[in-house]
Amino acid sequence: MIALWLEEQQLRVREDMPFPPAPPGEALVRVLRAGICNTDIELVRGYYPYTGVPGHEFAGVVHRGPKELEGKRVVGEINAVCGRCAACTSDRRSHCSRRTVLGIAGRDGAFAQYLSLPAENLHLVPPQVSTDAATFVEPLAAALEIQRQVKVSADDRVLVVGDGKLGQLIGQTLRLTGCDLLVVGRHENKLDRLRARGIAASRADSVRQCSFDLAVECTGNAAGFALARKSLRPRGTLVLKSTYAGALTLDASDLVVDEITLIGSRCGPFPPALRLLAERQVEVEGLIQSRFPLREGLEAFARAREPGGLKVVLDIADSE
Amino acid sequence: MIALWLEEQQLRVREDMPFPPAPPGEALVRVLRAGICNTDIELVRGYYPYTGVPGHEFAGVVHRGPKELEGKRVVGEINAVCGRCAACTSDRRSHCSRRTVLGIAGRDGAFAQYLSLPAENLHLVPPQVSTDAATFVEPLAAALEIQRQVKVSADDRVLVVGDGKLGQLIGQTLRLTGCDLLVVGRHENKLDRLRARGIAASRADSVRQCSFDLAVECTGNAAGFALARKSLRPRGTLVLKSTYAGALTLDASDLVVDEITLIGSRCGPFPPALRLLAERQVEVEGLIQSRFPLREGLEAFARAREPGGLKVVLDIADSE
Repeated sequence: MIALWLEEQQLRVREDMPFPPAPPGEALVRVLRAGICNTDIELVRGYYPYTGVPGHEFAGVVHRGPKELEGKRVVGEINAVCGRCAACTSDRRSHCSRRTVLGIAGRDGAFAQYLSLPAENLHLVPPQVSTDAATFVEPLAAALEIQRQVKVSADDRVLVVGDGKLGQLIGQTLRLTGCDLLVVGRHENKLDRLRARGIAASRADSVRQCSFDLAVECTGNAAGFALARKSLRPRGTLVLKSTYAGALTLDASDLVVDEITLIGSRCGPFPPALRLLAERQVEVEGLIQSRFPLREGLEAFARAREPGGLKVVLDIADSE
Repeated sequence: MIALWLEEQQLRVREDMPFPPAPPGEALVRVLRAGICNTDIELVRGYYPYTGVPGHEFAGVVHRGPKELEGKRVVGEINAVCGRCAACTSDRRSHCSRRTVLGIAGRDGAFAQYLSLPAENLHLVPPQVSTDAATFVEPLAAALEIQRQVKVSADDRVLVVGDGKLGQLIGQTLRLTGCDLLVVGRHENKLDRLRARGIAASRADSVRQCSFDLAVECTGNAAGFALARKSLRPRGTLVLKSTYAGALTLDASDLVVDEITLIGSRCGPFPPALRLLAERQVEVEGLIQSRFPLREGLEAFARAREPGGLKVVLDIADSE
């Protein structure tokens, strides 16, 4: 089959890839659509050592697996877990100490014609949700993780730093809480997208210091972190939603004096993400900026790396 | 009056200090005893610009103030607040944006014969609590702040990194929760003090990685932070209880991947600290390592800076 292959920070198109193994308990999924995430770009940059097929945002059709799923459209949770370690038995399965992670660690990913995942990781896509929209379930679930970690209410003043792909989703999911929300970014076209959905959005220089209860950092750069930090009132909470290439230097005394809480946030719950898409409470299809066939994966990555863009997807197969 | 004076990182004994002003609403307190805290040492090192009398851990007698307090032994909360700013009116008075802080910011402190604080900051010391013990109310309150910020229960595995003055208090206050507690440090005599109170205490190399739910860092150094961080299971919580001289460099991606929560923690509640001392649920007098008269304040600081020591107090006056 065809797949993108990452090895020593070099990405290439391979046509000779064997089908994924799909051992007992796993389903073989034919990939329909896959999205390029900043984490994929960071993987290629070498922020984390990975050799294999990248890609973890996808929608597909079960090719071989449990009878009730075969031929159905699915999305898949990316952490394949052991079910027996301390994390798994303590309700923290996405932190399984023996996990493999689709397209990120120890498991070939979604930039391929087929992928394999444990059947328990798959979720049926309801008919109201398009295949394009389903491709956003994974990052949308990650956005929803914030509300699982931090109570957000209508009287909270919340700042989202970053108007990119993730900032667009987080702006929408935080909007659902009724909080007093501002998203800041650098791209007028992206800020306009948020404004069109009734979300306050502006340039970063409009942020008043010490005035937000909660800040969500989704730029993945030190300037974004500094802005989020400064925006917080004492005892405020800063959610880190991006991975960072390299170390971050911070003034820890300052965190102590202001009693700031810093929370790292990663994968989230798929079922509510699917429901919100089905109910059209969140809009994602408009976030697709461009489409490439799998064979043009390198061009797709080049496009995704250009600043100012939104989601680049790979059209891998049609949903017949 | 006599006081220690800090200016441009130089500490000296002054005999010409005027009495503190004690404007309306403030009480003039004759200082009986004052403790030297690591923050004082960091102030002298220049971690924070401060010119004036340092010292914020004290017990004293009200010399002039509200009639019901005059002649009584008191301790005092160190943040003098405006009562009107957003922090004050939002139940975060210790974060008042216009605050002065006793011996730390904009207000002469306790290494003096007299100090002045708003009368509302003072708490009567019950007769069961000795003046020595009362000198520990401020750091004991700071230790109790942890349980106000983080729910700690009997099924939590908790690590305290640091067996010094603050680690000794935090070990005791966390012990009250019934949690599965371990304090680690470098000094056999200090570890023995904890063991004598039934608290598990050991060398740092015995810490198993990824096995604690909560870690409290009270060394104020990067190695202590790294140890606390590594000890945590995914989704664990790291409380920063020390100020740090200089910036801390951390792997932010790692915090995101493991969904770690980092919480800065500072001043805490005085009334429960006084009650715990009165009920002898916490023992502090044995933490006094040495005593100096105020005129020997420089020698006292020199002693407090020696590694391996516990609390150095200044005996400023007798409680007649």
